[in-house]
Amino acid sequence: MSSSVTELLTAAILTVSDSTAHGARQDLSGPALASLLMENCYQVVETAVVPDEGPEIQTALIRLSAKARLVVSTGGTGLSPRDVTPEATRAVCERLVEGLADVMRFEGIKKTPYAVLSRAVCGTRGTTLIINVPGSPRGAVESLSSIIELLPHALNLLRGQTEH
Amino acid sequence: MSSSVTELLTAAILTVSDSTAHGARQDLSGPALASLLMENCYQVVETAVVPDEGPEIQTALIRLSAKARLVVSTGGTGLSPRDVTPEATRAVCERLVEGLADVMRFEGIKKTPYAVLSRAVCGTRGTTLIINVPGSPRGAVESLSSIIELLPHALNLLRGQTEH
Amino acid sequence: MSSSVTELLTAAILTVSDSTAHGARQDLSGPALASLLMENCYQVVETAVVPDEGPEIQTALIRLSAKARLVVSTGGTGLSPRDVTPEATRAVCERLVEGLADVMRFEGIKKTPYAVLSRAVCGTRGTTLIINVPGSPRGAVESLSSIIELLPHALNLLRGQTEH
Repeated sequence: MSSSVTELLTAAILTVSDSTAHGARQDLSGPALASLLMENCYQVVETAVVPDEGPEIQTALIRLSAKARLVVSTGGTGLSPRDVTPEATRAVCERLVEGLADVMRFEGIKKTPYAVLSRAVCGTRGTTLIINVPGSPRGAVESLSSIIELLPHALNLLRGQTEH
Repeated sequence: MSSSVTELLTAAILTVSDSTAHGARQDLSGPALASLLMENCYQVVETAVVPDEGPEIQTALIRLSAKARLVVSTGGTGLSPRDVTPEATRAVCERLVEGLADVMRFEGIKKTPYAVLSRAVCGTRGTTLIINVPGSPRGAVESLSSIIELLPHALNLLRGQTEH
Repeated sequence: MSSSVTELLTAAILTVSDSTAHGARQDLSGPALASLLMENCYQVVETAVVPDEGPEIQTALIRLSAKARLVVSTGGTGLSPRDVTPEATRAVCERLVEGLADVMRFEGIKKTPYAVLSRAVCGTRGTTLIINVPGSPRGAVESLSSIIELLPHALNLLRGQTEH
């Protein structure tokens, strides 16, 4: 991997969870994602936690997008009344990348049919790629793993490098 | 199945069809869906018929969502000029559940490649799940059957029960 | 194929590419799509080239939709900063046909996993079907080929012919 590609690989992680934000639950998914990203040569420049509130999620995604080329959020992608991460993500993205979300969902179905209920989306904000994954540590890691090999090329395209 | 889960399983059916609404065609899809839902322990609290008019579909979906936890519409999901059920559904839903629509479509393709032309969507309005299925009795029943086992868990999550 | 079906099969092709629009690159994808369409009995009534500018893409799609029942655009579907064809397409379509885009993407993945990054959409404007395919000649032809057999039926439905 060339040094210019390595420079690309900055990541931030946003844990979206009422119970974690209020200190009632330890964040296991954020650190699990950080490990996975570091194993794949990403520099994790920031991790953050917000409750399941649309405006707070949007503010955090905007802030993290300015600091890292890849922002991965975990949590808030399901059907519970407070699950609004996909809506907040759509609101801050200029463009959606439906295929990445579809692949994560279809790979998830191979493990559990309930993966189909994930409403996770992926999109771009400027030159940053934002990816939603589910809140459980296992769902978060499995989802990101299913697309992680595609991401360096995607980040390269986002930066305007169009040649393979 | 516990009694609290059984209480969840209220359903309403909306047949969207100009010819049925005008009395020119008998509704076969609505009763076929009702049978399928009753076999799966749902109490069908109301069935209704509207023509392929966006505002009438929206009004009916809003009304039925207040009465049942699951609303299944049949018809208006294709490419004919008057097929506007997906647009009306999106307009009354706060959140979309793309995965359920994708599964119905991909299961449908196994029967007929034209299933790919279904524009059916699924979404949530308050604690109600709204599901579009095609207008033909066979397409309606096959589509709903392909996801029906996921629905009790989905409805449970919608009510705010997040533990498995 | 009856003569009424043949009359349906008018197509226009829009090449979306900065370098082609500025004369710096020969358009290979547009002619490749034209060949594929003519082999499938379409009359190609117009081909056009525009740069990767949202308003110009929208204007061209609107103009071509008035002339042909099928409009195929090539280019601008990826993640490069100037790739905005899907957004321009959504803006001029009244209805989306998600299934066609999904099939093109999933068929593409069988050739290259990066096909998942295509953000191509399909939708309808009046009685015209608009289809985005990628910019490379091979990606363009493979994408359109994967759905081309479904299109006569889709165009027939769009015209209001609902019986098989």
